Amino acid sequence: MARVLTPRAEDFPRWYQDLIAKAELADNGPVRGTMVIRPVGYAIWERIQSEMDDRIKAAGSQNAYFPLFIPESYLRREAQHVEGFSPELAVVTHGGGKQLAEPIVVRPTSETVIGEFMAKWIDSYRDLPLLLNQWANVVRWELRPRIFLRTTEFLWQEGHTAHADEADARAYARKILHEVYEDHMVSVLAMPVLVGLKTTRERFAGATSHELGQNFARAFDITYSSASGTVEHAWTTSWGSSTRMLGGLIMCHGDDNGLRVPPRLAPIQAYVMVVKEGVGDAATVLCDRLREAGVRVALDDRVDTAFGRRAVDAELKGYPVRVELGPRDLAAGNVVLVRRTDGSKTPTPIGDVVSAVLAALDADQKALYDEALAMRLDRTVDVSTVDDAIAASANGWARVPWSAVGAEGETKANADGVTVRCLTRADGSVPDSEDEPDLVAYLARAY
Amino acid sequence: MARVLTPRAEDFPRWYQDLIAKAELADNGPVRGTMVIRPVGYAIWERIQSEMDDRIKAAGSQNAYFPLFIPESYLRREAQHVEGFSPELAVVTHGGGKQLAEPIVVRPTSETVIGEFMAKWIDSYRDLPLLLNQWANVVRWELRPRIFLRTTEFLWQEGHTAHADEADARAYARKILHEVYEDHMVSVLAMPVLVGLKTTRERFAGATSHELGQNFARAFDITYSSASGTVEHAWTTSWGSSTRMLGGLIMCHGDDNGLRVPPRLAPIQAYVMVVKEGVGDAATVLCDRLREAGVRVALDDRVDTAFGRRAVDAELKGYPVRVELGPRDLAAGNVVLVRRTDGSKTPTPIGDVVSAVLAALDADQKALYDEALAMRLDRTVDVSTVDDAIAASANGWARVPWSAVGAEGETKANADGVTVRCLTRADGSVPDSEDEPDLVAYLARAY
Repeated sequence: MARVLTPRAEDFPRWYQDLIAKAELADNGPVRGTMVIRPVGYAIWERIQSEMDDRIKAAGSQNAYFPLFIPESYLRREAQHVEGFSPELAVVTHGGGKQLAEPIVVRPTSETVIGEFMAKWIDSYRDLPLLLNQWANVVRWELRPRIFLRTTEFLWQEGHTAHADEADARAYARKILHEVYEDHMVSVLAMPVLVGLKTTRERFAGATSHELGQNFARAFDITYSSASGTVEHAWTTSWGSSTRMLGGLIMCHGDDNGLRVPPRLAPIQAYVMVVKEGVGDAATVLCDRLREAGVRVALDDRVDTAFGRRAVDAELKGYPVRVELGPRDLAAGNVVLVRRTDGSKTPTPIGDVVSAVLAALDADQKALYDEALAMRLDRTVDVSTVDDAIAASANGWARVPWSAVGAEGETKANADGVTVRCLTRADGSVPDSEDEPDLVAYLARAY
Repeated sequence: MARVLTPRAEDFPRWYQDLIAKAELADNGPVRGTMVIRPVGYAIWERIQSEMDDRIKAAGSQNAYFPLFIPESYLRREAQHVEGFSPELAVVTHGGGKQLAEPIVVRPTSETVIGEFMAKWIDSYRDLPLLLNQWANVVRWELRPRIFLRTTEFLWQEGHTAHADEADARAYARKILHEVYEDHMVSVLAMPVLVGLKTTRERFAGATSHELGQNFARAFDITYSSASGTVEHAWTTSWGSSTRMLGGLIMCHGDDNGLRVPPRLAPIQAYVMVVKEGVGDAATVLCDRLREAGVRVALDDRVDTAFGRRAVDAELKGYPVRVELGPRDLAAGNVVLVRRTDGSKTPTPIGDVVSAVLAALDADQKALYDEALAMRLDRTVDVSTVDDAIAASANGWARVPWSAVGAEGETKANADGVTVRCLTRADGSVPDSEDEPDLVAYLARAY
């Protein structure tokens, strides 16, 4: 097959850009840093959303929608917010043909507005927990944009919850971490994850999944009257995930021929291709049978486009299984089943196609996960000092005792572009605090 | 029952506002004209989206996402756009802490950006038709905001398609009109619709469902090479629907006790209420049985809140069916089934509840439609002159021969705040042109 993409080993960033363009996942938007998510990419995002949304609802949170525009004054409510976001804000100064009395900010997160409304909606302990989630676009001005990974506008979900006490808030943050994020990443995206605690320094306003104590509730005056009649501040959590996951997916599962979409995620799991005219009816029947078996199917009967070109395109887009129907094979009762994960091509009796496709989808979901896990383990080095951790980060992950790092070591690593990605206990479980003894730190280069 | 809302007959706009606040559908946002869609309202919007999205995909369109920010210059590409939108634009002048070289507009629609990218993506006739849809937020500065009906930011879907010839474009616009919009409004929202042609004057940039000829393709240079090798302009369509539908839903089906959500739309179809402690287990079993029968169920076991208050709240929120479980009734093997549409309360043997609920949901979907249709027919008056049509519009619809109106009559009606809502043929079908003979015009007051 002719080389379609720059090989990863030659130039990884170029490969990433090539893949996004040639698989028709996305384009750069006309305003620098923005992106157009094309149908192929957006269909994957919709599947991510749908699987995530099911889990968020199963965890008891309800979706709501808060405005795009936030009065600039809201962001001054919490000092951390202003410092964190000021250089990233897009500011609307004119509306309806006039200059505005107070400038309006395009939300970098909805945290502050949601805080305001939580304070308004929560009255007594009966209103708790209040479990909210929002799917929306947010804007953070980006100086070095890269599609999906760092864009000025991105799509995300942000969860914000308020609880009567710390134990409930902590338990809920853990529930989201494991039952929403970890389960989604592992079982849908086929991406192994390290679930751990962020260091204080990495807990930037508006990132990942946190139990926020009562600080946020104090800033926004989120109080409730308890069963005994006292007025208390609520305990809050916040958690988010974004279109950045699409970037992670590409880097984790892509290869030199294009994207590989894990079967459980794939909007199109089986891509049925008519090689030449004359087999259209058989292809339609096969699509119906696959659909009845619960497989997400697309039919490619564009016989006026060269088959080779369509096959390259299917590789690029990463459909897990291709079923190729040619007149000669079909006359012998066969089709060719092509698996994207390992590139295998297997002549298969047409009567066995449905079961063969189902088996391939199951096996390749696991194969992609196993391959990604093996890669991570292969790239993880155990070291005992910060200097060795920084050196090891050039090539992957460094695992080092947190006691050998600490706040000082973290500062040093950060100066070299390496960050503490997370802290776990020795047994891999999530610590309650970074002050626990015998924690393990995972360090890696920040991109 | 104590009066909870201002009665419609007393003050309709006040009733509308009261209902939105007390049913917890939405709140005003902190920036004038924006809204917060609360979980109760957003769950209805998600159902609208889901039913609409299924139909859009069945019609062959694919979802994509285009950027929130548009260079100001894009809007000058099409004269109609600048004129139509200038006073409605929100303009970003600062980003990333600096003044921008070119101001950026927050999209009032994505029409112009989508036009740009269509031109880029379409090369030959093989790329046609290109059928795109987007779910997004848009901003149009609103001087007299009213929640759902007129808000500065609203949520919508906008479809934009490009076709090789006029016949294909026209057929697709009709398909969307009937199979997406009409079917959705009638069979899900239970709202009778008049499907017709907009007059030239009512075809404002970015509204409803249109076949746009080649004008848009000319403005954005959307061309394709035909099978015979000539270069041709494409034919385009555009079509949209928004959170405004929630406003229509409230006005169409709401009554003096609150909202009535049509069963097929309702996020919660059966609301199972524990009247007093001691029946929780029976309620849980009943919820499971209803869920197994495909009913969307919620359990209200908040026995620490007075039952009467919860019942009023359920009325306000418009759950189609309530199933009330009290210890005394339950001892006799009964529950009370309350239908929101007609307010009927029927003691029902617990073994019959599932079938009774299913029957009620079916019947009430139809009852709401029939009631709305009867109301519209009752409020439609046949007249033969523009003056009579303007007078009749004070109370509802005026049906008048289009030949008695024309461009001149339309100008006169508009001056009185009355617009031509649509034109149909005498048999109710959709005309191809406003120049067809014997058309019927429907006039009504514009709100």
